Amino acid sequence: MSSRSYTLTGRYAETDAQGVVHHANYLTWFEEGRSEFLRQVGMNYSGFEEAGFFVIVAHAEVDYRAPAFYEDRITVTTNLSKARRRVLEFTYRAVNQDGQLLAEGRTVHVVIGRDRRPTSLPREWLERFKTT
Amino acid sequence: MSSRSYTLTGRYAETDAQGVVHHANYLTWFEEGRSEFLRQVGMNYSGFEEAGFFVIVAHAEVDYRAPAFYEDRITVTTNLSKARRRVLEFTYRAVNQDGQLLAEGRTVHVVIGRDRRPTSLPREWLERFKTT
Amino acid sequence: MSSRSYTLTGRYAETDAQGVVHHANYLTWFEEGRSEFLRQVGMNYSGFEEAGFFVIVAHAEVDYRAPAFYEDRITVTTNLSKARRRVLEFTYRAVNQDGQLLAEGRTVHVVIGRDRRPTSLPREWLERFKTT
Amino acid sequence: MSSRSYTLTGRYAETDAQGVVHHANYLTWFEEGRSEFLRQVGMNYSGFEEAGFFVIVAHAEVDYRAPAFYEDRITVTTNLSKARRRVLEFTYRAVNQDGQLLAEGRTVHVVIGRDRRPTSLPREWLERFKTT
Repeated sequence: MSSRSYTLTGRYAETDAQGVVHHANYLTWFEEGRSEFLRQVGMNYSGFEEAGFFVIVAHAEVDYRAPAFYEDRITVTTNLSKARRRVLEFTYRAVNQDGQLLAEGRTVHVVIGRDRRPTSLPREWLERFKTT
Repeated sequence: MSSRSYTLTGRYAETDAQGVVHHANYLTWFEEGRSEFLRQVGMNYSGFEEAGFFVIVAHAEVDYRAPAFYEDRITVTTNLSKARRRVLEFTYRAVNQDGQLLAEGRTVHVVIGRDRRPTSLPREWLERFKTT
Repeated sequence: MSSRSYTLTGRYAETDAQGVVHHANYLTWFEEGRSEFLRQVGMNYSGFEEAGFFVIVAHAEVDYRAPAFYEDRITVTTNLSKARRRVLEFTYRAVNQDGQLLAEGRTVHVVIGRDRRPTSLPREWLERFKTT
Repeated sequence: MSSRSYTLTGRYAETDAQGVVHHANYLTWFEEGRSEFLRQVGMNYSGFEEAGFFVIVAHAEVDYRAPAFYEDRITVTTNLSKARRRVLEFTYRAVNQDGQLLAEGRTVHVVIGRDRRPTSLPREWLERFKTT
């Protein structure tokens, strides 16, 4: 289970009155890290929901190391650290254009169906994660 | 068709690096103005969607007059300026705790069904808007 | 160090395609919990920044227990769990109008000055936290 | 004054309970369109603020033509439609990966200084806009 990266540009709307990116946006950046991870292994998250599998967030944590600024080029590296049929866990690192570590994070997810009750991902999907 | 008001407190997350509330948030404040308008006339928007009517935004415009700051107490007054079965139009004014005008706006909405195709609101609902 | 509460209404803009409040918004709700805590003890955070003290987020974590929906009335209770001159820690609980627990969280903060370097809050401020 | 384009991917956090991108996000996408326009003509907006020129939003309007979805690839084309020393005007078009028009918009900006009072952009900057 290798990691995948994508790069974004800090948006003006993401800054706050301290002149830096507001801390809540890292959860959104990490979410796009998951999206990008899945796209890069050929399993778009859109397809999950079309198939009736909703991956919800059960836990999220972020350690903030250094501020991000408007127009910074930030690379988010996402690692699928645990893949079970009912639980997924991802870890994240965000670094800026100078290689400076901005934040590290971890999210834990559970899988629910259209009825909002817990369910399991197809076994083949899990295999696919493991071989990528 | 009288107007309805509600008051909010400027959130830190709503500010940007200019130290003022980011301009996109006014669309959210106006949206909550519509929500509050509907709640105050006894027709929660949640009920619209449960009944299969989705009121989408076709046009939005804002004139920004003065900046809003974190912790400002802002009163948004919402007026239903046009109410047809397929089209609703609202106008808005936002003022701060000193009575200073911050922004004025207008949004135009069309009604769609679960199939995302245009539909009409029930005639009785329109009557209700007109008598409140 | 008692706790303080405030109540908000779930905004439409805070929902996502799963039909529930997007998980990143809880960090904003908790931030407003901190703001409200400080206002209720008579020490607005605006005053901190005017005096040159910036309280930044070093760590944040959230456990999500149940979803929040548009128009839910959500009460956030904020507790100042640690108050040192250089480090503050808050814990949070969010419950809905039915008393159902939605989320619990914790944030750790450090104090920096206008130069973005670590500094200490005035000793009197700490005393004030402790006696409220 | 030619136009400039950039492409973004619709974020999950940008969707709302209607399953489409929430209308307020278009203002953010247009803002990044302006940022990208300036970067592409070699005049980063970061540099404006460092030089003491703050370009604020005086008016914004959006016509919404079709919904955007999570994972859509959206191209925003930004055109500098008016460039005076005290007033800038931009227009925008957002289209999806199928070439479908999603939204058109217009924003009007005024220039202020660090003291938040109106000021004028340097004449050379205007020349630079006109020759790109």
